[in-house]
Amino acid sequence: MKPTVRIAVTGAAGNIGYAAAFRISAGGMLGTDQPVILQLIEIEPALQALKGVEMELLDCAFPLLENVITTSDIETGFKDTDYALLVGAKPRTKGMERSDLLGDNGKIFGPQGRALNNHASRGVKVLVIGNPANTNALIAMNNAPDLSPSQFSSMMRLDHNRALNQLSLKTRSRTTEIKHLTVWGNHSLTQYPDISHCSINGKDATSLVETSWYREQFIPSVQKRGAEIINARGASSAASAASAAIDHMRDWVFGTPGKDWTSMGIPSTGDYGISEGLMYSFPVRCRNGRCEVVQGLHMDDFSIDMIQATEKELLEERDAVKALL
Amino acid sequence: MKPTVRIAVTGAAGNIGYAAAFRISAGGMLGTDQPVILQLIEIEPALQALKGVEMELLDCAFPLLENVITTSDIETGFKDTDYALLVGAKPRTKGMERSDLLGDNGKIFGPQGRALNNHASRGVKVLVIGNPANTNALIAMNNAPDLSPSQFSSMMRLDHNRALNQLSLKTRSRTTEIKHLTVWGNHSLTQYPDISHCSINGKDATSLVETSWYREQFIPSVQKRGAEIINARGASSAASAASAAIDHMRDWVFGTPGKDWTSMGIPSTGDYGISEGLMYSFPVRCRNGRCEVVQGLHMDDFSIDMIQATEKELLEERDAVKALL
Repeated sequence: MKPTVRIAVTGAAGNIGYAAAFRISAGGMLGTDQPVILQLIEIEPALQALKGVEMELLDCAFPLLENVITTSDIETGFKDTDYALLVGAKPRTKGMERSDLLGDNGKIFGPQGRALNNHASRGVKVLVIGNPANTNALIAMNNAPDLSPSQFSSMMRLDHNRALNQLSLKTRSRTTEIKHLTVWGNHSLTQYPDISHCSINGKDATSLVETSWYREQFIPSVQKRGAEIINARGASSAASAASAAIDHMRDWVFGTPGKDWTSMGIPSTGDYGISEGLMYSFPVRCRNGRCEVVQGLHMDDFSIDMIQATEKELLEERDAVKALL
Repeated sequence: MKPTVRIAVTGAAGNIGYAAAFRISAGGMLGTDQPVILQLIEIEPALQALKGVEMELLDCAFPLLENVITTSDIETGFKDTDYALLVGAKPRTKGMERSDLLGDNGKIFGPQGRALNNHASRGVKVLVIGNPANTNALIAMNNAPDLSPSQFSSMMRLDHNRALNQLSLKTRSRTTEIKHLTVWGNHSLTQYPDISHCSINGKDATSLVETSWYREQFIPSVQKRGAEIINARGASSAASAASAAIDHMRDWVFGTPGKDWTSMGIPSTGDYGISEGLMYSFPVRCRNGRCEVVQGLHMDDFSIDMIQATEKELLEERDAVKALL
């Protein structure tokens, strides 16, 4: 058995946190030889429900689950944590201005960044899931000056997996046969699901589908999938979001498979002309716990327009939270 | 990769089914080398929500998940299925008589037994989770004359895991250090969580706890844990029930570990004096896909009273559904 690691989850009594906690405890994220301590964080009013989550986790008698800590205090919750899944956020409600949304979330992710900075393991890996995820991650990162920016990421894996699914349904292939897909930019309606470097069983994906389908159906269907799920389920994506978070972390820790890559929001260092410091989703390969942007991909005019449009939105979001950075 | 297997889940849009489906698809039940087809079954009014579950499952791009079938038709849903998790049931509501409860569930589990009999894989393994689970399983089994009774079981693993947890908290041990615990009888308030053969790190469990704690606190706390979860969460056990179902099936298929045993509701063949044919929870070891009652355990007077009390309840339940058997 490996030494025990600590995994913090915020918003842990919510539906995504609930789905994630059990899969993590069963070894789904870090492997069945990795004992874990879960540090579950919720706001005060949700602490009783969180206690119920703790009770259910213990009732599973998971061999890997050494302890469960529940708290509303982020310093306690992030203490010595090796991994942090920041799920809890203030979602956008009807009639809410984006600036209000960003400001409200700043009040959450600024203090969380500071608490991680001061209390987490020095090698902590942080994944922001709560929306607006990229800019929330940007705020947390900028409030953690003693940690490396490379320790922060935002989740695009749900979009990435959704794009794999849409493309596999269209081409009657399996998702495992699809390589080199990227979802660029922001986890929002401006994201760019890009199949221009994508192969399916060794064939160029662009040769297997019509351009009109790609641009008019595929891209919007991935961008708007969240709303489609809500319409069908009467509830937003929960287990699929948790599953994507697990995939993201697993690839970060154990590496992306073979020559393939994945999509992760990471701090831009200027690749593909994207403004430095933005939390932006790139094609990313992970090795030995480090993420690197895949270099040298040819970008056609359509792709350049698309990656710049989603960059523009992220720049506006950054401007709106300037005071928090 | 092994040949693909089919797993049917009823009540698949409910909270237990939802939690189970994703863990099964990730390989948590049958291993990460076992491709699966999920056959998800719901009543008509829940089909739209079930469609949402299917969408989310596909959005996970699980490498092992070959297909998802959603249906309200049990013959379609059970067709060629290798495993069946019967989650959907009519739960008891306030003021409902037990005879009404049992009758209503008979209308569900009688037809399901017949559909399994006529359409499932000849080697199907059936686990009934929906309450009253033992008697629902009895009804299904009795309506499937072409299948062996040994292909039917009812879930006691949640009670078993809950008992492990309570005992580990009390003795400050890990659940993996506790061996030879049994929960006997019915998945109800009459169940008997029995530590009289139990060892913890090689020591007799009964020497580590007071008899008064065992009888007055431990036993009721396991029996009533479900209500405690509802009080805390404001919702009934979902992910822990799904986790127990996965444990039950995994042990049935891959065997119980080492010399330990688990608790499973299986058709009595008269062991420990329990009436033949009752779906009753015993200490069970599984090897090569077969379950066997652990023989020759010494039962003290307290234990005999307890296993007979829960047998009596199951006999009454059986009488109440006689017409369906």
